[in-house]
Amino acid sequence: MNRHFDDELGELKERLLYMASLVESMINYSIKSLVDRKEELVQETYKHESEVNKIQVEIDDRCIKLIALHQPAAADLRLITSAMKINAELERMGDQAVNIAESSVKLLKQPPLKPLIDTPRMAEIVKKMVKDSLDCFVKKDLELAKSVLRTDDEVDDLKDQIFRELLTYMSSDPANISRALELILISRHLERIGDHATNIAEDVIFLVAGTDVRHHLNELEEKK
Amino acid sequence: MNRHFDDELGELKERLLYMASLVESMINYSIKSLVDRKEELVQETYKHESEVNKIQVEIDDRCIKLIALHQPAAADLRLITSAMKINAELERMGDQAVNIAESSVKLLKQPPLKPLIDTPRMAEIVKKMVKDSLDCFVKKDLELAKSVLRTDDEVDDLKDQIFRELLTYMSSDPANISRALELILISRHLERIGDHATNIAEDVIFLVAGTDVRHHLNELEEKK
Repeated sequence: MNRHFDDELGELKERLLYMASLVESMINYSIKSLVDRKEELVQETYKHESEVNKIQVEIDDRCIKLIALHQPAAADLRLITSAMKINAELERMGDQAVNIAESSVKLLKQPPLKPLIDTPRMAEIVKKMVKDSLDCFVKKDLELAKSVLRTDDEVDDLKDQIFRELLTYMSSDPANISRALELILISRHLERIGDHATNIAEDVIFLVAGTDVRHHLNELEEKK
Repeated sequence: MNRHFDDELGELKERLLYMASLVESMINYSIKSLVDRKEELVQETYKHESEVNKIQVEIDDRCIKLIALHQPAAADLRLITSAMKINAELERMGDQAVNIAESSVKLLKQPPLKPLIDTPRMAEIVKKMVKDSLDCFVKKDLELAKSVLRTDDEVDDLKDQIFRELLTYMSSDPANISRALELILISRHLERIGDHATNIAEDVIFLVAGTDVRHHLNELEEKK
């Protein structure tokens, strides 16, 4: 691997980390707008989205050029194709944050249904998953990648808990239905962001350990 | 481009088409189980899923090997990286079909809430989107790709219509809530399959026309 290629790989990782930090901010602003009931914060999510979209195109270009110019060997090739996948996952996380922002705008037109505790908690966990999934890629940290996979189960449990609670709200008063539904959808968007982080972590495990866990996580857990 | 490489590209496309046909069947069985109220059909969706998962790993491997062995020029490189993206999109469509199957199992434990007309209609449109998105990739058909993008708007409208109708069911009787919710989630899963097909079509437009429409569809429409 020549020095130049090394530098370019380093830059590529930097850009992915930056993109991830934007996605974390998007989640932050969309949830904060809802919890603090400040619609103006939603604009920050939208601003970050157009930046994320630009970077996605840039990173894809970078990857293609890296492969075309340097014709890297299989291991580096897998690293770069993984970067392309991570790039796509991050952009989709951003889309989910936009969905949350849109739900928030709808909810802020009505009085609050209930104090929001589980939703911001779920958002915190999911933001950490986003950060960890990128960190495990950059540091090739297998243990961190596995921890992302485990956290995803926690997120799923929280989503189910939120669902059950909101179902009770809906059943008790039809006036609650549309707001409760919107909160259920927000928890689904957060869950999906967690799924994207999990996809990244699975890819990292494949990169580092050479085990394709995308459809065989149980096997990996058994080997531990 | 040498003959061997050409053959391998052809095989790659065949495998993607086969994977897409499995995904269409998965959608079919999951919706059919719900409409015909036959839980046993859900098993077909699950069987196809494990096949789809296997093919995903196989196709990814094929792509990496194609790049590593033939070191293709930029245009072919983009074709192969697109194939990798399409591969990921198809696998996620399969996941959504599994989500529908799971919702169907829950719904079949209760009496039907209402005759299902819009849901199977939405499923038909979405299955066509899946087929068309792969066809436009294989045939490099720009017009077909654009039609997939337009159909996505139709799917979104149908999803909104389903949502409004089910909201009415929920408001009129709390006993309807859990079933109506499940049907709303099914329409979201179908919508998401449509989104994945749209992602593929956008990629094809980029491949064929060299225009990145992922975040600029309006521009493309204006140029027409």
